[in-house]
Amino acid sequence: MLEFLGTFAFALSGIRHASGKHFDWFGGYVCGFAVAIGGGTIRDVMLGVTPFWMTNIMYVLCTGMALFAAILFRKYTRKLDNAWFVFDTLGLALFTIAGIQKTAGLGHPFWVAIIMGCITGVAGGVIRDVLLNNVPVIFHKEIYAMASVAGGMLYWGLFWLDINMPIAVISTFCVICLIRFLAVRYHISLPTLQEER
Amino acid sequence: MLEFLGTFAFALSGIRHASGKHFDWFGGYVCGFAVAIGGGTIRDVMLGVTPFWMTNIMYVLCTGMALFAAILFRKYTRKLDNAWFVFDTLGLALFTIAGIQKTAGLGHPFWVAIIMGCITGVAGGVIRDVLLNNVPVIFHKEIYAMASVAGGMLYWGLFWLDINMPIAVISTFCVICLIRFLAVRYHISLPTLQEER
Amino acid sequence: MLEFLGTFAFALSGIRHASGKHFDWFGGYVCGFAVAIGGGTIRDVMLGVTPFWMTNIMYVLCTGMALFAAILFRKYTRKLDNAWFVFDTLGLALFTIAGIQKTAGLGHPFWVAIIMGCITGVAGGVIRDVLLNNVPVIFHKEIYAMASVAGGMLYWGLFWLDINMPIAVISTFCVICLIRFLAVRYHISLPTLQEER
Repeated sequence: MLEFLGTFAFALSGIRHASGKHFDWFGGYVCGFAVAIGGGTIRDVMLGVTPFWMTNIMYVLCTGMALFAAILFRKYTRKLDNAWFVFDTLGLALFTIAGIQKTAGLGHPFWVAIIMGCITGVAGGVIRDVLLNNVPVIFHKEIYAMASVAGGMLYWGLFWLDINMPIAVISTFCVICLIRFLAVRYHISLPTLQEER
Repeated sequence: MLEFLGTFAFALSGIRHASGKHFDWFGGYVCGFAVAIGGGTIRDVMLGVTPFWMTNIMYVLCTGMALFAAILFRKYTRKLDNAWFVFDTLGLALFTIAGIQKTAGLGHPFWVAIIMGCITGVAGGVIRDVLLNNVPVIFHKEIYAMASVAGGMLYWGLFWLDINMPIAVISTFCVICLIRFLAVRYHISLPTLQEER
Repeated sequence: MLEFLGTFAFALSGIRHASGKHFDWFGGYVCGFAVAIGGGTIRDVMLGVTPFWMTNIMYVLCTGMALFAAILFRKYTRKLDNAWFVFDTLGLALFTIAGIQKTAGLGHPFWVAIIMGCITGVAGGVIRDVLLNNVPVIFHKEIYAMASVAGGMLYWGLFWLDINMPIAVISTFCVICLIRFLAVRYHISLPTLQEER
């Protein structure tokens, strides 16, 4: 259920960005699908396993429903901005943890798992921005990817301390959401690289 | 022979777009090659098999010939615009069917095969547009990708009805070409996503 | 040691380009990492092996050190422009040879190895330019990728002539560096594709 909501929120984010560039329905669908499955697909291709969305039609249908909702309830989606933000953050936390567990489960070292968790959570948005011909927003805006990395490190630490799994997962989930909420609430961002003079 | 013409037309499309951005010969070659093999390569990487162009030097040479032709017959290529359009459409139909058959042959469900057919046919053009720093044209112009998807669905239907293979392939081929021709002839396009107010 | 320097120079090139777009530290790190490992990762994914950086934490740390250096010594990096240019060229030569050897070692034909050597050397820079929303510089500027291709062809010739390995590697290395140095010194570039009239 949570996974469905996260996928829906991710797809909707892609579709809404596509609206801003006057894409047609197909373009909107592809953008939404790219956000929803892009990160996990890059992860799975690097891990050498079949991309997760190819074994479950849920992601294809969920993106279709997001497109349908975006077209039908166009006037109301903006009013739900806060709800989408919450779902998007839940999606980030969920996808990060799923990426870490899948990678660690395949026997890769933990630093690879943290990177893969981050890729799972944020690469879809980068693909969206590349397709829309924008500079990827996560590279110069609020903290987003760092929440995923911080969560990954916490998960590693808890695992290393032999904390039992459900507690580690829930803590990681909460910490990622918390960092993201605080970053947006207080406009916290990383320092910017300065051009050389 | 048909495959060679399709590859040639795809490569030429990449090279001609590259000319518009004043790329050098290498840039033109890469753009052409990306259009010709990009979609099939993404498909093969997702399917976990060796990319098709790595086992047959034909695609590398064909792109080189397209570059050669684009440089040599620069003044005449525009007069042949209609011919390239026809070849490009044949290429779309051919690549779509090849993508579907390869994916289904590996035992994936049919909805995956339809997506893979579409990726084989259109992803090369998306890569081209990304490399040229343009917004991908298939996301906001005439119907192109939807012809591929419609053809894939038809193929599925015919397969399910137990129609024999050659007839299914030829019907799919014709339908994809027909949709594309009609869409361009009558300027049919999908509805555009509207920005929220 | 040479590999470390090449990786460092590649990462620094990504980070410095990111500075020009006012990316934050995370964006700079990702850009640097993409340049350092992007080409080799595309190669490994196509070859169907685990991406090289997933088995050695050196690349992750090296990029971190490059970011650290770029932030700390911001005022001095420009003065070292010539040094970075040399390291970048050494990196190009080194990555090209590594790509060729890995591909040939997996039993692929030599023309595939030359392409993979070129991808290993230059694709990272293309990814960087795509992430920064620029037109890839290697498609319309000085000779860069062609040095890699020329080196690959030389390597092939020497291998075919049964020259012993170390001599072939050193010759290839020198030729790639020499072509690159001469191209930059004398502003040699490939002819540009002309738009049709």
